Amino acid sequence: MSSDSLENLKTCLQKFAAERDWDQFHSPKNLSMALIAEAAELIEHFQWLTQEQSSNLSPDKLKEVEQELADILIYLVRIADKLGIDLINAANEKMDLNAVKYPASVVHGSSKKYDEY
Amino acid sequence: MSSDSLENLKTCLQKFAAERDWDQFHSPKNLSMALIAEAAELIEHFQWLTQEQSSNLSPDKLKEVEQELADILIYLVRIADKLGIDLINAANEKMDLNAVKYPASVVHGSSKKYDEY
Amino acid sequence: MSSDSLENLKTCLQKFAAERDWDQFHSPKNLSMALIAEAAELIEHFQWLTQEQSSNLSPDKLKEVEQELADILIYLVRIADKLGIDLINAANEKMDLNAVKYPASVVHGSSKKYDEY
Amino acid sequence: MSSDSLENLKTCLQKFAAERDWDQFHSPKNLSMALIAEAAELIEHFQWLTQEQSSNLSPDKLKEVEQELADILIYLVRIADKLGIDLINAANEKMDLNAVKYPASVVHGSSKKYDEY
Repeated sequence: MSSDSLENLKTCLQKFAAERDWDQFHSPKNLSMALIAEAAELIEHFQWLTQEQSSNLSPDKLKEVEQELADILIYLVRIADKLGIDLINAANEKMDLNAVKYPASVVHGSSKKYDEY
Repeated sequence: MSSDSLENLKTCLQKFAAERDWDQFHSPKNLSMALIAEAAELIEHFQWLTQEQSSNLSPDKLKEVEQELADILIYLVRIADKLGIDLINAANEKMDLNAVKYPASVVHGSSKKYDEY
Repeated sequence: MSSDSLENLKTCLQKFAAERDWDQFHSPKNLSMALIAEAAELIEHFQWLTQEQSSNLSPDKLKEVEQELADILIYLVRIADKLGIDLINAANEKMDLNAVKYPASVVHGSSKKYDEY
Repeated sequence: MSSDSLENLKTCLQKFAAERDWDQFHSPKNLSMALIAEAAELIEHFQWLTQEQSSNLSPDKLKEVEQELADILIYLVRIADKLGIDLINAANEKMDLNAVKYPASVVHGSSKKYDEY
């Protein structure tokens, strides 16, 4: 992975949209719809599988899933760019919050939501 | 952004889950559900807005949206890790495919799907 | 519409699943995934359209959208059946709650959430 | 269930929106977003559960799930109304198609998609 992989992807997506005159369609509202549509294509691969099966995909299935994850990342980077958000920074900040909301000693082995403790 | 920001996030998430004994819940199937639930929280911010409004969020709203994007990235990195997928590599490969499916000269200014041309 | 149209649909879906030995796949968890996948196919039709365009679909597009709505209803009826929930009753109760949460005089012309007033 | 339960719900929703001047927000595009947001709230209840657990909800959880199903039905009926679609008719037609796509003798006990046979 190169030193600025998400930055590179962002720039690549900007160029891709500009060359196709697609910025007119890329409002955050529209992009959030495109993103969830991709997240649902991921869901479709797993909907009839057991949890174990979802961890043991055939190489073909895994390749398809990989492409869905790619699509999600693409739209995620694109929305973040359109809103001027630094994704990595946001995720790091969120993990700091999560550490407070879900103290390891309290939530150990439980999947309850933080407001259910 | 550091040289291995997504790698760092992946490691941080591994540690977070291990400390809480949460790997038992983190099947790709379950994580795909958590991811789409976060994608829907993003949708909720935009559902009654016009496209223009979605591009001009108040600072408070923008902060909330930033946290939703963070949550999506977190689950995305987590699924990719569980399935051994390199996200950046996958996205770059997908963009190569997209360049073939959507030649700039053909799709210019159009939002049709590649199979509608 | 016949006198017991949702009941008829429920029975039809039971028979359809039984004949195919599909009840083994139809846990509420799995059905909730199938339902959101269909909801996302609906989203896909609208993601690049303006709001006005989404109200003025071509006959072909409208037919496709009709089938997505059908799929959503099918899975909705199926989950409700699996959980012993009466959908119409539930919707009527929810509308009573909504009338309290969103008094017409307070929320007139506003799309804010009930906890934002 | 009364003889025209979905029709009644449709009329109730029309009145509810009119009294609040909400029709301005209820484009099919926006309603599809609201619908998927509700479908995701359903997903959230199930995301960390096993399939068996999702079939055996506590009374409290079941009540919450019931309200999510209600919300989905409400938005589904609303979109159908805005697009002039008869939901029951659409679902019946779709089930006729499904019977052709998934012949019981061929798909028995399998969860593959129709184009995977």
